[in-house]
Amino acid sequence: MKIDILTLFPEMFQVFNHSIIGNAMEKGILSINTTNIRDFSTNKHKKVDDYPYGGGAGMVMTPEPIVNSIKHLRENNKGKVIFLGPRGKTLNQELCKELAKEEELIFLCGHYEGIDERVYKYIDMEISLGDFVLTGGEMACIPVVDSIARMIPGVLSCNESYEEESFYEGLLEYPQYTRPFSFEGDEVPEVLISGHHENVRKWRRLKSLLITKERRRDLYKNVELTKEDKKLLENHHKKDK
Amino acid sequence: MKIDILTLFPEMFQVFNHSIIGNAMEKGILSINTTNIRDFSTNKHKKVDDYPYGGGAGMVMTPEPIVNSIKHLRENNKGKVIFLGPRGKTLNQELCKELAKEEELIFLCGHYEGIDERVYKYIDMEISLGDFVLTGGEMACIPVVDSIARMIPGVLSCNESYEEESFYEGLLEYPQYTRPFSFEGDEVPEVLISGHHENVRKWRRLKSLLITKERRRDLYKNVELTKEDKKLLENHHKKDK
Repeated sequence: MKIDILTLFPEMFQVFNHSIIGNAMEKGILSINTTNIRDFSTNKHKKVDDYPYGGGAGMVMTPEPIVNSIKHLRENNKGKVIFLGPRGKTLNQELCKELAKEEELIFLCGHYEGIDERVYKYIDMEISLGDFVLTGGEMACIPVVDSIARMIPGVLSCNESYEEESFYEGLLEYPQYTRPFSFEGDEVPEVLISGHHENVRKWRRLKSLLITKERRRDLYKNVELTKEDKKLLENHHKKDK
Repeated sequence: MKIDILTLFPEMFQVFNHSIIGNAMEKGILSINTTNIRDFSTNKHKKVDDYPYGGGAGMVMTPEPIVNSIKHLRENNKGKVIFLGPRGKTLNQELCKELAKEEELIFLCGHYEGIDERVYKYIDMEISLGDFVLTGGEMACIPVVDSIARMIPGVLSCNESYEEESFYEGLLEYPQYTRPFSFEGDEVPEVLISGHHENVRKWRRLKSLLITKERRRDLYKNVELTKEDKKLLENHHKKDK
């Protein structure tokens, strides 16, 4: 996949050099290039922002440098232009999976109080990380690119396989244990050392169901419980009494 | 505020040096220190992960290095230990605001398939960025720290003031315009150059309401509409007919 990032802070994306994403870049599976929006300012002081019409605090990013930089990238990247902004679709695993299928993508990071509304006609999709405010679009772009890139075949090794991970089936993950067997007096649950694969699977499924039910009612209510799930929950509640 | 971050990839947090958060660190308003969990491994190969009990793909982070590093930090940081993980409370602006009041915080970034369940007794709060999977906790920690840090008094300048920002009142932001007045044939809406502050305020409020209603029904249904809001919407719908 070819990813271009439009930003006022290209240095921030060095963060990927230290990660699994950096390894994928070295292997040539993925390329991530940054373009400084400021380089496309036609202003002699290389200004990229100005006061908002109608007044108010903060500065707004002017349309020209952004649009000029998009047009420049268009020559070599025909992908969707994705703006990281608060009005966008909230990122979820389904969206990551969908975007991981693209061959090219352009991400636009905004700063200050926002971008001029007239830039929107150059934007194909707006993504929001969640309902909180960040100092800039870069802070959203970093995890968004990470979550998409890791789904590209070859980025994760087998050991980092994502098949079993949480959110894949709409459930939170079951508890994990590793060595030592006893840690500060706490031992690993017996079933996990039983060698009985079927029981391990059932124990994990039950734990995922219970944890999701307790912590994320919103996810749980969308889970289609199988016959086995219902039986596991029933037996668990019987034991509880 | 004093922030300590426990991670296997301390280099990633250099990302803050290039941001507004970096300026606040230079001014002494905020300190962000990273501690490498690997330094607290007692294993001669400095291992920090092992196979999961009960089988399955991936590796699990062993409890000792994490707990040893938390105990080490405890001498100088009495703050809440926050684990970035998928089972956590989903980050929102309210939570950011609350955490920005703390004097000290410790963030724990997990990697691989997760952390040993027995570490949880050292964790005060688990935060999730959203319902998507990342390569590691660092990718969540970066925006979480950013969104909390920007709320600390003195971190943002007046120009970057956050009072008016989206999510503050549960509404998405109104459209912003800046110079030039005409861009590719599109002109700035007349009301914004009228100089009539009251009309500007009403126009922006109406736009916020309409955009939120269209894009985020979930937020909109929680907005308590004022008398004025109802009147603005009514007039708008009349004009539409």
